[in-house]
Amino acid sequence: MEQGKKQRRQIKLTVAYDGTNYCGFQVQPNGVSIGATLQSAVEKIAGHPVSLLAVSRTDAGVHATGQVATFFLEGNIPVEKIPQALHGILPKDIVVWQAEEVPPDFHCRYDAVGKHYRYTLRNSKICMPFDRLFVWHFVPPLDVIRMKKALPSLVGTRNFKAFTAAHSGRSDFVRRLDAITVEKRGDDIIFDFLGRGFLYKMVRSITGFLVDVGRGHLAPETAERAIATGDRSLLGLTAPPQGLNLVKIYYDEKDFLDKLKTMG
Amino acid sequence: MEQGKKQRRQIKLTVAYDGTNYCGFQVQPNGVSIGATLQSAVEKIAGHPVSLLAVSRTDAGVHATGQVATFFLEGNIPVEKIPQALHGILPKDIVVWQAEEVPPDFHCRYDAVGKHYRYTLRNSKICMPFDRLFVWHFVPPLDVIRMKKALPSLVGTRNFKAFTAAHSGRSDFVRRLDAITVEKRGDDIIFDFLGRGFLYKMVRSITGFLVDVGRGHLAPETAERAIATGDRSLLGLTAPPQGLNLVKIYYDEKDFLDKLKTMG
Repeated sequence: MEQGKKQRRQIKLTVAYDGTNYCGFQVQPNGVSIGATLQSAVEKIAGHPVSLLAVSRTDAGVHATGQVATFFLEGNIPVEKIPQALHGILPKDIVVWQAEEVPPDFHCRYDAVGKHYRYTLRNSKICMPFDRLFVWHFVPPLDVIRMKKALPSLVGTRNFKAFTAAHSGRSDFVRRLDAITVEKRGDDIIFDFLGRGFLYKMVRSITGFLVDVGRGHLAPETAERAIATGDRSLLGLTAPPQGLNLVKIYYDEKDFLDKLKTMG
Repeated sequence: MEQGKKQRRQIKLTVAYDGTNYCGFQVQPNGVSIGATLQSAVEKIAGHPVSLLAVSRTDAGVHATGQVATFFLEGNIPVEKIPQALHGILPKDIVVWQAEEVPPDFHCRYDAVGKHYRYTLRNSKICMPFDRLFVWHFVPPLDVIRMKKALPSLVGTRNFKAFTAAHSGRSDFVRRLDAITVEKRGDDIIFDFLGRGFLYKMVRSITGFLVDVGRGHLAPETAERAIATGDRSLLGLTAPPQGLNLVKIYYDEKDFLDKLKTMG
């Protein structure tokens, strides 16, 4: 820490939110965004305008347990008081559960070594009302073993062009997906994704594809063809937003590799 | 089943709901009630007006896993098709997860032998946004052992006048509370109530009292005095609605006694 800069600290927030009532993280022309709500709360406790940078632009209805956002703070507020101070201002569906001071040259996007997303699907006739905002309720039975057959084609450094939304406007579709697991737990099917970077709607596109495989509408081998051709029209469903959660952003390579090992 | 009455069957529904967006079960002058929403959906699938009777008039914001409601159905809809038919009409925060035909003289209120309510409190600095509508978030640490000391005075056939809302307009305040348990599970404190009948806001009044005991504002012995005098002014907090769930209505004496045994 440079002595003269003591009064201008970069603060890293770890943020959980229920995305149900928001138009997503990013500021949008219509609707209330999580980012704008958080930025305005941060400005209230800071007493000055801030420019809030977040890692992931989660979509409308998508949730987070471990979104990360940074800003520069002037003044003397002790960093450990920030979560409680924000708690008093933020709506109850956005919770800053950790605040840390980080070096001024820390960059929350470029310094991230990996991300963990989880998608939860309720595969049963009935979805209890308490869970409806956090799962995709899908009634027809799904074959998890069949889904698992498609996974090897999707893991590794691949061209995920077919698995992103058509209007994403990017030209580089190569990403490294380090692991995907699909696990049945009671009535739920849990999809975990660990990767270095994700394209727009990539997790929801892959999940939707796996569901099409699991219900027998698509062959597991379609994954290989979609990766090879980049042709989205080979695919069907895109999973709806409410089942998706941004679990964690990793900044430590060893933590990330340890997590990868648990996903076997 | 009488032959000539075959076309007029009494149907018993078991209903779960997230009470957040409703003014309670009962029809109210302002706001949308769960009862009216359910009745209107039932009338749509029945094709005729019905009079829906429910066991518990849960308050605004209170949830249920096992509310029971009955009505008389004309026509030939197979009873096992009713949950799916209602699922297509009801908002996603009300779910009828069981429908059974019951004898015409079955009375969902008078034939109930017991009820199970659960209250969930999150005792930690932070409450994750996904849980906020289903727990009472209470930050100061609570002493569960101290709370447990108040329980013996509250269990049994007692005059619960002090533990009901002042405006309830009743004159008979004697109820039989068969069991209360208070259990710490991680950051949560779970209060389970098993009883034959409950007064208006009785569970929330007892929970609020126990929290006052747990944070040291009231002595455990206050329970005995409140029961003896019926004086509500001895008490403090009433627990807010969102932590409360009507778990189950018991109609079988043996089931109820078995459940009681598990609560030891």
